[in-house]
Amino acid sequence: MALKAGFGRLATMGEAFDILYSHLPDLGRQEVSISECLHRVLATDVVSKIDVPHFAKAAMDGYAVIASDTFGASDTASVVLRVSGSVMPGQVAKDGLTDGECIEIGTGAPLPAGSDAVVMVEYTEPAGDEVHIRKPVAPSENVVGVGSDVSAGSIVLTAGTLLEPRHLGVLAAVGLSSAKVVARPRVALFSTGPEIVEPGGDLLSGQIFDINSSTLRAALADDGCDVVDLGIVPDQPDVLEDAIRKGLDEADLVLLSGGSSLGGGDLVVETFEKIGKVLVHGVAVKPGKPLVLGEAAGGLMIGLPGYPMSALSDYYIFVQAFLHRAMGVSSGPRSASATLARKHPSTVGRYEFLPVRLEDQMAIPIVKGSSAISALAQADGFIEIDENTEVVEKGEAVIVRLF
Amino acid sequence: MALKAGFGRLATMGEAFDILYSHLPDLGRQEVSISECLHRVLATDVVSKIDVPHFAKAAMDGYAVIASDTFGASDTASVVLRVSGSVMPGQVAKDGLTDGECIEIGTGAPLPAGSDAVVMVEYTEPAGDEVHIRKPVAPSENVVGVGSDVSAGSIVLTAGTLLEPRHLGVLAAVGLSSAKVVARPRVALFSTGPEIVEPGGDLLSGQIFDINSSTLRAALADDGCDVVDLGIVPDQPDVLEDAIRKGLDEADLVLLSGGSSLGGGDLVVETFEKIGKVLVHGVAVKPGKPLVLGEAAGGLMIGLPGYPMSALSDYYIFVQAFLHRAMGVSSGPRSASATLARKHPSTVGRYEFLPVRLEDQMAIPIVKGSSAISALAQADGFIEIDENTEVVEKGEAVIVRLF
Repeated sequence: MALKAGFGRLATMGEAFDILYSHLPDLGRQEVSISECLHRVLATDVVSKIDVPHFAKAAMDGYAVIASDTFGASDTASVVLRVSGSVMPGQVAKDGLTDGECIEIGTGAPLPAGSDAVVMVEYTEPAGDEVHIRKPVAPSENVVGVGSDVSAGSIVLTAGTLLEPRHLGVLAAVGLSSAKVVARPRVALFSTGPEIVEPGGDLLSGQIFDINSSTLRAALADDGCDVVDLGIVPDQPDVLEDAIRKGLDEADLVLLSGGSSLGGGDLVVETFEKIGKVLVHGVAVKPGKPLVLGEAAGGLMIGLPGYPMSALSDYYIFVQAFLHRAMGVSSGPRSASATLARKHPSTVGRYEFLPVRLEDQMAIPIVKGSSAISALAQADGFIEIDENTEVVEKGEAVIVRLF
Repeated sequence: MALKAGFGRLATMGEAFDILYSHLPDLGRQEVSISECLHRVLATDVVSKIDVPHFAKAAMDGYAVIASDTFGASDTASVVLRVSGSVMPGQVAKDGLTDGECIEIGTGAPLPAGSDAVVMVEYTEPAGDEVHIRKPVAPSENVVGVGSDVSAGSIVLTAGTLLEPRHLGVLAAVGLSSAKVVARPRVALFSTGPEIVEPGGDLLSGQIFDINSSTLRAALADDGCDVVDLGIVPDQPDVLEDAIRKGLDEADLVLLSGGSSLGGGDLVVETFEKIGKVLVHGVAVKPGKPLVLGEAAGGLMIGLPGYPMSALSDYYIFVQAFLHRAMGVSSGPRSASATLARKHPSTVGRYEFLPVRLEDQMAIPIVKGSSAISALAQADGFIEIDENTEVVEKGEAVIVRLF
């Protein structure tokens, strides 16, 4: 069981993305109720069938008036109008207005026929069945016009929108009780490696707990995937092969971690070759170099490194981008701008993803190495340093890609 | 049904928060499995019972050696060592090393007894049962020491951590299969107002679709709450009272929207007074002024404005802060720094939450008014403008609180 001498030529970031993006699964779409839409991806543009609002309404509590009746009103010379009725939200005024009349109106109530403006209650004084108006209003003042917010036929949300709470409000506002969303990607997930064991028990010498199943399962859930959880797969050739084939059968993507380095016991590359074809073995990034991409009849196979920080870093850089592209997500990943807290020397020739902790808009580099789980505990995200940069100076403005 | 003349003195932001924070429910805690921990809040510090790693291991593929054996090795004068065995991840070397020997080792495999360093495979050349070492190593080089990442007894995560994928990896790394988290807050939610109807059907004149149920239910889900969904409650005094009492019985918080302005038909304030006590009616913020806070024997009652943008804004400012404080969340809300794209005049005397759209680190103000649902579609978050600021200039650095 001889050690191999090293990776071949490493793929560039661009080459890795080209391969990923040329292997996108067709996910299909489904209609789901609004209450199930959170964090799903819109499959189509949403066109409003209605004007919003669909009737002219009061923007303020007060009195619906004919604007010209109020011209000249002031604190010292109020205009007196007869109050001919009252209309509150959800009601419709029985009668319209004629000159010299007004109708008490609540915010959101439809403007009575004949009226064209609303005087705010703050500028009025009731007196029996009359009201003193102390301030004039122009036509349309304090009125929300028909379709002023959304006009029928216009697009309110575009395909690819990752639906957040506020977007569900937009769907509701135009009267939809459901929406067409992209089907969840199904991802078969497992960890491999002879040294890893399920958390919960005791460790024998040489063993470590399976970390990547927990981080990756959760990251996939955050990204709206259904996980086919294959647990820990021993790295025996036939067992590994069976697991990958099962994953290809049942899912849109096979995602595994571990076994992709150069140790003699590493079988992932060989097994990818046996089942299909290895497209990339090693990418010029740091951490996360030992990334393996393979294709088979059943879809794409991605082998992530075993080190937890490397695996999660590759996940957020490559796998999430792949999934978002497959789902058609139109927004970029979450990021924040910050100032680098410490000078950081980088490796020329490798694109670096430097984990950082965020504190008061400062990005503090975490330089623990990709095997350190304490880095996982602290990192709020990472900054990207291209392959030609030798040093990022303290105080430089950086964009932090948030986990 | 007379209109009232206006709000009394508006509460300040600080007063509103003081009241919220003095009415925190006691949520209790529960033990849940790691796979259920995502987005939950840790109830206790997590102390590692083990050293991580719990054995010294190879950081690289190569050969485990006695470092002093390699001193003086170079490209031109290699040191030759006898390969006495091989140890891969998950295995334990049967025999230790003696002078002049080395053992082939895979990344992550435990260091054999007697060895104290690893020579990377890149600096070696196998030759039968020997290997040529072309570079010396110092003791501990390419070795991950016992407890070097986490030492037994140290705190790896603190109480109040909002658990993201990476944190679940930390729990797994120290061998935990479950964690103690804060119980989900139970929030009774409903919309009220005579004009609102369930999305899906047709609108009669004067009616609008219920938007806030969709946005608030989703926002509460994002914040880890169990929602007791009471739907749309007609604003009739007895029905409204019944719904609030039911919510107080079944939940930690009653959250409703609508009916908190000054229209004659607004019953929320009166009903809060009947059931318990109104603590705040109106806060000096824009949008979201018509916020009502009330207390009853069963807990806090929060009445949000009916306008969707106002309701969601008050949610993120006040309700989320209340829930996070109740859960003991130690991190602040998500935010991003940006540059204001346009000059924005603000209202002196009211703390303003200006919705903005983010584009290339620019914050573009959305000035559609709080009834506009198109603002909901576009706003990525808001910036805070204090009550003494008259104008925020174009180009000013701002912090965007992300939705």
